[in-house]
Order: sequence, then structure tokens, then C-alpha cells
Amino acid sequence: MGLTLQALVLVASATRVFASCAHGTFLSPRAEGGTVEVKTFGYSGTICPNIGMQGPLNWAALEAPANSVCATGTKQSPIDMVDGVFTVIPGTDVQITVNDMPDGAEFENLGTTVEVITQGGTLDVGGKQFELQQFHFHLPSEHLDNGTSQAMEMHMVWQSAAQELAVIGVYIAIADAVPPAAPAPAKRDNKILCSRLNRRQEAVPPPPPPTTAAAVPPTTLLETIFSVVDQIAVPGTKVTTPPLAMGEVVDVLRAGAFQVYDGSLTTPPCSEGVAWHVSTARLGVAPATLARARDVIGFNSRYPQNAPGQPNILMISAMGSAVAAIVDVAAPGA
Amino acid sequence: MGLTLQALVLVASATRVFASCAHGTFLSPRAEGGTVEVKTFGYSGTICPNIGMQGPLNWAALEAPANSVCATGTKQSPIDMVDGVFTVIPGTDVQITVNDMPDGAEFENLGTTVEVITQGGTLDVGGKQFELQQFHFHLPSEHLDNGTSQAMEMHMVWQSAAQELAVIGVYIAIADAVPPAAPAPAKRDNKILCSRLNRRQEAVPPPPPPTTAAAVPPTTLLETIFSVVDQIAVPGTKVTTPPLAMGEVVDVLRAGAFQVYDGSLTTPPCSEGVAWHVSTARLGVAPATLARARDVIGFNSRYPQNAPGQPNILMISAMGSAVAAIVDVAAPGA
Repeated sequence: MGLTLQALVLVASATRVFASCAHGTFLSPRAEGGTVEVKTFGYSGTICPNIGMQGPLNWAALEAPANSVCATGTKQSPIDMVDGVFTVIPGTDVQITVNDMPDGAEFENLGTTVEVITQGGTLDVGGKQFELQQFHFHLPSEHLDNGTSQAMEMHMVWQSAAQELAVIGVYIAIADAVPPAAPAPAKRDNKILCSRLNRRQEAVPPPPPPTTAAAVPPTTLLETIFSVVDQIAVPGTKVTTPPLAMGEVVDVLRAGAFQVYDGSLTTPPCSEGVAWHVSTARLGVAPATLARARDVIGFNSRYPQNAPGQPNILMISAMGSAVAAIVDVAAPGA
Repeated sequence: MGLTLQALVLVASATRVFASCAHGTFLSPRAEGGTVEVKTFGYSGTICPNIGMQGPLNWAALEAPANSVCATGTKQSPIDMVDGVFTVIPGTDVQITVNDMPDGAEFENLGTTVEVITQGGTLDVGGKQFELQQFHFHLPSEHLDNGTSQAMEMHMVWQSAAQELAVIGVYIAIADAVPPAAPAPAKRDNKILCSRLNRRQEAVPPPPPPTTAAAVPPTTLLETIFSVVDQIAVPGTKVTTPPLAMGEVVDVLRAGAFQVYDGSLTTPPCSEGVAWHVSTARLGVAPATLARARDVIGFNSRYPQNAPGQPNILMISAMGSAVAAIVDVAAPGA
């Protein structure tokens, strides 16, 4: 594997510089005439005529060269949020304001997610200012929280005047799932994970005790939004939500910390240069509300990528798969 | 994409016949001396020294040629259970008996799942008889239920005297998540999905209304098993469960139907020839119990494969990724 990986690193490094030229093409322009543009990618292995396989393993081929960084980028999202891949900044070091929407907001079904179009909000972090564009939902979570898949994840997408992107990711837990008394959560890191897997290594440190998330109440914003999700069950449709108060979510974010890393969009074109801020705080969703959201969203989680700076996992997979095909032919019956 | 796909089909067809020679190596032998053997694969993109990337995109390379069918097989599992990829048989046409375990059962943490070692049970289907070996859990579900990810999935693994395998898959829903009144569920199929995505096609039929799963009570078996999951938080450990009564689960399975297809193990070595029986009935898990299971299991769901008989999605991905790498180098700044 050593030589193979080195070759991949070379390819990946060479392509990364060029890929970064794609900045500025991050967000799809809003469709004209108020219609909702349905996306042309998907999340499963289904092969469609004239399109090909629509899932994330084939996004690069769906639209080349626009999407090629999905298969070649070395700072792709989502990732497993373990110690060592992010830095932490307190929620209070980030200035967030989000306008309430007393007349409700447009809530759209893009076929690949359901998305709320916002009406103003600012994020001040690291000396830069961003404006809130929209927020949308993934089911199950795209990032893994210290190795663990969460029920859902909300992405708040912010853009600067220079078209730089920041995304706040917040896990959504099942509300009122009161956990049992448990030891204080400890962080895993990739070294501990690999030690468990790697038998050639003698000293295997014991894994830390499991993390038990604190119980969370249902978040009013989510209960309100998903109370009308049934009305946009059909891709391409939209509805106006009831009035939305945004203060509760801002307070939750401010009370937690942000795990920050330099990643990408988790959907085509997978553009990099996205400043990810994954919150350590959680929103809550009632079980029945989660069931309603699940019925419409279905499944829209890209598989976890590897740590920022490592070769794209599709490049690693391609090498391994090619070898597997050759081995299969060369050594039948193995 | 047309020519590319044809080439892939040729490669895939050539290798499939040989891959089927791997029958008989399906189940790992039980470890000697009562110790629990921790698996050496994983589910994320993490790259481990001396192992390589441990996630499902790289399983073929982790152990060649034993695992090569993970990347070359054309009947891989899990899949999206949409109309057209399975046949249906009533639950009452399948004879299932599972022995109660009044002294409890061994419950093991394999690092990749938590597994209950059973003490007898038979499955009679299609004129063949299988014996129950174990059942284990995935979080979130591996199969998609008509495009929808479920909270968890239980796999009951059965083996015949001729070492053929049958697996019963049952989705686990969040218990007592009472859904709102909804229209009768309608089935999607890949034609409808592709129509939505394919703009070159003029007539796009509207998607069916969402499926709303009926509310389910907590299943006593799951509540009992997961009441002790905290005690096997460390991979390689085991515990004896409280007494297990199996009649409730058998009754649930008998009341539903089975969606049957010819697939594979969803873990290395991904051996094919597995008779999948995915139940239309559901088990239920209380929210707090799900939280406990989540803390230990973390994330162990292989990405969805494509429909049985289609080229392996890693082969499709490899072609697309190679093209993306070339395009990226040839057309910088795209």
C-alpha cells in the first residue's frame, strides 16, 4: 500500500491547486421566476438512463469537469470529527445574528434536501463577515460526532462579499431521549481507532468510555418548520412556513463551542475552501417530527471522507478496486 | 458513459463467476477460548498505518484476494429496496422458530457491531432449512426502505448444512413515534427516481406521496439486550444478557411479508449468494435505548449498492474518478 499511497498523494497534490480555482462557483444561483430547481444528483447506487449512477461515488462523472474535485479534492467534507482534525473556538468568540421571519420563510424541496431560504443574518468570525443564505437538513448526520452517526444535521450556509463560504453544522438529536448516568465523555482520535484495528502494533490502548449525549428538548424552530414538511413531499415544490423565531438556535450555538476545519461542500460540485464550524451543542427534534422529516428527506448523507490533507478516498478506492478486479481474474477461486 | 459502462459490465461479468467460488468461507469461525475477535475493518475514511483506509470504499484492498468481491461483485448488499429489485413472500409462507434463552445469551462487541450469539432456531423457506447463528445490529439502517434510511437494522444470520446463508433484515424504528394521519404509502421505483433526475426526459411522473411508517411499540427483546450494551462499550468485550424471549420478534416477522433478493454479506469478505429476506414489519426501540445503542455502535452502515446484476458501484466510481483526475490535470481552472 505504501507505494500506491505515495502515487496517489502526488496525483492529489497536483490536482488540488487547480481545483481551488473553482472558488466563486460555490452556490447555485437562485432559479428565475420563483421556481424550485430540482437537483440532478442523488444518494444511492441507482443507475439512471442518460445520467449514470446518481450517488456520491459517481458525482465527479455526473458533470465533468465541474464536479471533478468530488473525486480528487483532499479537503472534502463530511469527516469523522475526532480529536486532531479540528481546532476549537468558544461559541462566544463567534458573533451570530439571524433575523426573525415573522411572515414565515420559503421552504423548498430540492429533491436532495429540504431548505429554508433566510432573510438576513450575519456571522463574524476570524475577522471576516458572512451573510446567511439558507439552511437545510441531512438525514442521518453527514459528519460523525467522534465516530457516531446522529439522527440529523442542520447546515447553515453563509457567504462573504468575496464569495467565501462558511457553514455551521449542528447535530439534531432525538429530543427527550434521557440517557442513563454515564461517565464523562472522552474523545477518541484516529490513533486510538487505528490501534484497535492494527494487530501488528503491540500496545493497544483501551478505547475511551462511550460518549453519552445530554438529553435535549425539542427545538421550536425545527418543530415549526417540519410541521409543514408534508406539504413539500414532492421535489420541486415549496411552501411558506409559519413565523420563525431564530433566537433559540442562536442561543444554543453561542452556548456551545465550534469545531473548525477547512473542508468542502458535501454536495456537487464539492467545492473546497469552505470554513466548517461544527457545533458541540445540539438541537432536538421530537420522535414524531423526525418521522415526518424522514418520510420526505429519505436519505441524503454523503459517506465520510478522510482527514483533511489526505488523498481523496475515491482515489484510494479506485486503486484498490482496480487491483481487486485484476486479482479476481488472475486468481479465480480465491 | 455508454461505452464505459459496457466495458465495466464485461469486467464485472468475467469476475463474477470466479467470485462465486468463495462460497463456504462466509462466516468467520468462532474464536477459540471464548475470546471475542475484534474485526480489522471499519466504516469511515480514516487511514491507519499498516492497514490503509479502513472504510467500505477500501475493503477489497484490506485483504486481497479474500475481499475482492467487495469491489467486483454485482450482487452486493445493502441496496435501496424499491419496487422491481425484490420479490415478495408472505411472512406466513416462511417457517421460523427461535429458541428462547432463559439463561441469557452471549452479547459481544466485535468493534464493528454488537452481536448476540444464539442457541438454536430454524428457518424453512423455499424448501431449504437454515439454522440461526447470531443476530447483530447496524446504525443507521443499511438497506434503504423505499429510499428512506431507518434508525437501525437488525440482521438475523442463518446457515444451511451446505453452508448456504440466509439473512433476515428487520428495520428498527423509534418506538411510539406516532405519525400524523397520512395517505396510504405508495411505492417508488427506480424509474420514478430517475425520471425526477433526468431532465432530458419530457414526461416526469409526479413522485408518490411519502410513506409514513406506523407507530410501533418498544420491542422487549431490544430493550432487554440494550439494557446491558453499556457493559460491552470496549471492542473485544462480552456480557451475558438477561433472559431472552424470542416469540415476540417471530410474531412480528410472521405478521409482515419478506422482500427477497439475492445479495451479499454487507461486511468483508462481502461474499455473494446470500438469500436476503428484508421484512416489511418493524421492531421498535425507545429513544433513550437508541441513545445507549448509538453510544456503543457509533456508525456501521455500508453505503447503498446498486440493483442486483448491475456493475459494482466501485468499478463505476473508479472509472469516473480516473477521468476526473485526468480532466483536473488537463483542464486546470475549470
